[in-house]
Amino acid sequence: MDIQELRTRNPDHWMRATAIRALALDGVAAANSGHTGMPIGMADVATVLFSKHLKFDAKNPEWHDRDRFILSAGHGSMLIYSLLYLCGDPEVTLDEIKNFRQWGAKTAGHPENFLLKAVETTTGPLGQGIANSVGFAMAEEMLRARFGKKLVNHHTYVIMGDGCLMEGVSQEAIGLAGRYELGNLIAFWDNNDITIDGKVSLSDRTDQVARFKASGWHVQEIDGHDAGEIDAAITAAKADGRPSMIACKTHIALGHAAQDTSKGHGALTNQEQNDAAKAGWGWTSGAFEVPAEIKTWWEDAGSRGSVEREAWNARLTEASAARQAEFERVMTGEPPKRLSAVVKALKKQISEDKPKVATRKSSEMALSVINPIMPETCGGSADLTGSNNTLTADMGVFDVENRKGRYVYWGIREHGMSSAMNGMSLHGGVRPYSGTFMAFTDYARPAMRLAALMRTPTVFVMTHDSIGLGEDGPTHQPVEHLAISRATPNTLVFRPADTVETAEAWEIAFRQTGTPSVLSLTRQGLPTVRTEHKNANLVEKGAYVLAEAEGKRQAIIMATGSEVEIALAARDLLQAEGIGTRVVSMPCWELFEQQDEAYRRRVLPPAGPVRVAVEAANRMGWDRWLCGERGSAKKSAFVGMDGFGASAPAETLYEKFGITAANVAEQVKALL
Amino acid sequence: MDIQELRTRNPDHWMRATAIRALALDGVAAANSGHTGMPIGMADVATVLFSKHLKFDAKNPEWHDRDRFILSAGHGSMLIYSLLYLCGDPEVTLDEIKNFRQWGAKTAGHPENFLLKAVETTTGPLGQGIANSVGFAMAEEMLRARFGKKLVNHHTYVIMGDGCLMEGVSQEAIGLAGRYELGNLIAFWDNNDITIDGKVSLSDRTDQVARFKASGWHVQEIDGHDAGEIDAAITAAKADGRPSMIACKTHIALGHAAQDTSKGHGALTNQEQNDAAKAGWGWTSGAFEVPAEIKTWWEDAGSRGSVEREAWNARLTEASAARQAEFERVMTGEPPKRLSAVVKALKKQISEDKPKVATRKSSEMALSVINPIMPETCGGSADLTGSNNTLTADMGVFDVENRKGRYVYWGIREHGMSSAMNGMSLHGGVRPYSGTFMAFTDYARPAMRLAALMRTPTVFVMTHDSIGLGEDGPTHQPVEHLAISRATPNTLVFRPADTVETAEAWEIAFRQTGTPSVLSLTRQGLPTVRTEHKNANLVEKGAYVLAEAEGKRQAIIMATGSEVEIALAARDLLQAEGIGTRVVSMPCWELFEQQDEAYRRRVLPPAGPVRVAVEAANRMGWDRWLCGERGSAKKSAFVGMDGFGASAPAETLYEKFGITAANVAEQVKALL
Repeated sequence: MDIQELRTRNPDHWMRATAIRALALDGVAAANSGHTGMPIGMADVATVLFSKHLKFDAKNPEWHDRDRFILSAGHGSMLIYSLLYLCGDPEVTLDEIKNFRQWGAKTAGHPENFLLKAVETTTGPLGQGIANSVGFAMAEEMLRARFGKKLVNHHTYVIMGDGCLMEGVSQEAIGLAGRYELGNLIAFWDNNDITIDGKVSLSDRTDQVARFKASGWHVQEIDGHDAGEIDAAITAAKADGRPSMIACKTHIALGHAAQDTSKGHGALTNQEQNDAAKAGWGWTSGAFEVPAEIKTWWEDAGSRGSVEREAWNARLTEASAARQAEFERVMTGEPPKRLSAVVKALKKQISEDKPKVATRKSSEMALSVINPIMPETCGGSADLTGSNNTLTADMGVFDVENRKGRYVYWGIREHGMSSAMNGMSLHGGVRPYSGTFMAFTDYARPAMRLAALMRTPTVFVMTHDSIGLGEDGPTHQPVEHLAISRATPNTLVFRPADTVETAEAWEIAFRQTGTPSVLSLTRQGLPTVRTEHKNANLVEKGAYVLAEAEGKRQAIIMATGSEVEIALAARDLLQAEGIGTRVVSMPCWELFEQQDEAYRRRVLPPAGPVRVAVEAANRMGWDRWLCGERGSAKKSAFVGMDGFGASAPAETLYEKFGITAANVAEQVKALL
Repeated sequence: MDIQELRTRNPDHWMRATAIRALALDGVAAANSGHTGMPIGMADVATVLFSKHLKFDAKNPEWHDRDRFILSAGHGSMLIYSLLYLCGDPEVTLDEIKNFRQWGAKTAGHPENFLLKAVETTTGPLGQGIANSVGFAMAEEMLRARFGKKLVNHHTYVIMGDGCLMEGVSQEAIGLAGRYELGNLIAFWDNNDITIDGKVSLSDRTDQVARFKASGWHVQEIDGHDAGEIDAAITAAKADGRPSMIACKTHIALGHAAQDTSKGHGALTNQEQNDAAKAGWGWTSGAFEVPAEIKTWWEDAGSRGSVEREAWNARLTEASAARQAEFERVMTGEPPKRLSAVVKALKKQISEDKPKVATRKSSEMALSVINPIMPETCGGSADLTGSNNTLTADMGVFDVENRKGRYVYWGIREHGMSSAMNGMSLHGGVRPYSGTFMAFTDYARPAMRLAALMRTPTVFVMTHDSIGLGEDGPTHQPVEHLAISRATPNTLVFRPADTVETAEAWEIAFRQTGTPSVLSLTRQGLPTVRTEHKNANLVEKGAYVLAEAEGKRQAIIMATGSEVEIALAARDLLQAEGIGTRVVSMPCWELFEQQDEAYRRRVLPPAGPVRVAVEAANRMGWDRWLCGERGSAKKSAFVGMDGFGASAPAETLYEKFGITAANVAEQVKALL
């Protein structure tokens, strides 16, 4: 690449873009860690995008109608930090740039949405950004359909690397974007031919242009260092009704000794080489210094959106007060005031009717009263609509012709679905929930973890939550997946025992603004165990005494979900023999942990009765409750799974694996 | 579809294929569960494949040079069971067909490789079969290069459904197959336009033919009910040097009332409709009955490979005894006798040299002595070769021009890589191990679980196993991933503390024939803690006393991996204050659980000293060891993570999160 030619072809553009390059080089060198090459390679694209197209106001990064910018190739984080600093984002000071990757800095190794307002989503695990962006673009379509384009009318821009495109989730994302014709989604591919191990061709020779076209995308191929081509391509992409992919031929670490090599991908810390690169770029300023006129130009670029933002504010105030309030409510994620009332009404009715239904059906019953009063919910399923019971009446189906539709047919794409749901949550205005079989938590894991890390209130509806699924066999029967979700920080894992607990769980899930929820629901029918109506949401306590011991309390049986029925039956057997037995329902461990110690000790007294836990999953994590907190001694036992399941009818499996009332009662008696 | 025309066009073929249809219909109806439509739709393809092309001998399903047949659309399991019964597989009796999906039957809901010899791989979780098949085909190439085509020369055939193609892992698989020009891989797409939720177009409009072509595949489009077209397409696919995809236009539940509808996907149990379907097919036999001449024809098809098998046996006996023995050894997965000796020699040297290295480097040191004596190993990385340290000298790189290469550049495809490694293990003859960052366990999860369920000894090398990764931050720092792998049945999770333990872990991993291993390895340097050489493999015990208390034993500190160093330093602090402290290294919980009770009690005595565990991960699972088995009371504490990590240098993070010797010592003193 002839740097001289680039410098002279468009000298103003060159120096503005090179401000990004120099900051990236300095930031990574100071941290002695990070990724220099990508910010250098994509500086031209970013400069044109941020100065001519991206609708944003750097001083007001939370303006609702801003364009969204997502750095799917999150390791190139110095690109976004440099841009934000240059544009005058008040959070990204020069000190933050200098403290890149240090303790307490907002400029973390990868862009973290919870550290900087202008970072829309946390990226780094490859492919997540492009999959998130599908959700961003869908949320925008849904909100525009609901609130009109005067209030909602923006684009979602993404920068993807080769890694994003090799990860399978990218295929799920581009398939979805193509199917739903998300015309406001524009993705740049940093086509630099380099991965960590070497040339891309070492491991992949896919024709990416053909691949995107195969899924219905508008595709352009440009020189990623030519400002004019970049500008024209973005203009054309905005004009096209399809999602757009712009393949940008770039040079990683442009103008550096490491240019076009895998060395250029990582941290460029050789002072001499870095100095030579700067000299070649024509950059004469000192480390972390940006000439005033360039900084001013960038700040003008960063504030250029303020006019549009003010015009938007004016349009918002033209709307009725109710409409403004509703818009603000859904954008901040506050649930409607009536949520609690409709849940209470359902609980009351259920406690009277005492239906025997699967909790996946209970979930549908809860959603059937909640969805009508929460127009921001967006349901869906990874091709298991009839099994996950996530579709309720009058939601409408989201489609090209029906952007008001609130149900998404995600196809067999658990990962893309979950990642897109995160994007919807992060965009705001939409409350996504969607389902698959619980065993396929595995497919959704990368997105489920990121939901927790990013503090998004995405709801994962995981039905067929045990061997109770029956004949489909061990591939479809979760045994470790409750432990997996419970092991994940900042995640509420609900395993409700009946319709009342399920409704309470949904209420809590929809009240979250910074925590995702997992609902673990059965395929098989369960009796109503909460037959006495209480206004209070007992699931909120995490665990509670469902049935007290009669006579002297000799045993406590702990259970969740479908095994609460078994615990109650075991209690009947034991009480018949005069053994006073308490049953504790534990629908949400995380909430129980948050209760004060006095409450926890009331539910699980540290001394006295023996303890047996029953859950049709494996033991991992249960010792905490079996032993008692602080290691108070307990004679205890666990009834559950200690390996994979099998293919047979559900009742047979419960019997064969010993998850029965008789066995629970036996275990209690053996301990006494 | 005009069934009459199909019946008359090729009546012999029609009735043979319809034997599959009828058995599938009867099997599912009897089980009142399962998937009828796919076996009916793909019966023609399967009939031509099994009777004219597939090289197999139904009575000898483990013949090493058989063609491999993989039903990626595993829910259509009655297709494979019907074929095996018809062909005379001794394991699949008519009773097995009648007991489809029942307790104890080999004919489980989805095909399970551990129940039937002829089932090459467990499928059901969609996309796994096609990704496995990449590994099968790679293993075949590698073995042919090593042993010659007289001994190894077969194809891998796969049937994929629309679900397989929507799952992202399929993109990783087709990218790999295209890149490595796996010409012996032939995949059929059951292009029936139907998923559970409705038409495929409801959620996807991807041009699959264009997509496969974009990755370098040979693609044909045929009528999946035309025997002649099927036959010609398979012939052409075999002749082409590229991997082949044959798009078979089919009708799900052909000839049934549910044809071409999503109802046809599941269990067709309406007796009247089923009878009508059979009548339309011209099938007049009773339930589970197959006319003798059709059964005979199928048995001839099933035994037709016996001639080739005998010729192959003859060729094998022509080889030298050493070569025969080596071929049998690698196919059965037995490690070479010298494995133990080279590991011992390395351990001795390390105990003397006492290097301070990261365990990822220790792993490379172990592999550097093992790989030369185990020519069946196949290493790799998901584009992190230099970070995972999985490449050793003289392995060679697997490529189109070098099928003898033993290292695979998998690209940024953790899921496809892991699933393909499972395929290699299942094929036999190759021992795959490969690396990524431990946090990306999430991406590999579906395949890691299946490795455990399928009992394949795949080795997952997970480096950068804690906050010790440093500046890349929380997206790249595992905190729950040890718990995730430990929660998975039939999985050995190793977290070695130094080079000696790492070498011992590798020896154990390579001795497995039915259990996968996870190696959790550090980025950061660790001192050698096993400074006294022992011939015995101590990791084999799972946990052991690394440093005994001096004086009265008041405390036990348990630790794994990088925190063993911290535990030893804490012990120094405590001993200096006269507090006798034992340090227990626990590199593999699962192996410790397998020890007899006497040993476990020797290492962790049930009464007496307080216990503190230290691990730079979260607490999930540790209560089991903190409380003591059987709930024996322990005053105990855990030092580790209770949330996500952060971006900063590793030493800072350990300090800020309190994972330090000083804190461990404090915790011990607080308990005393």
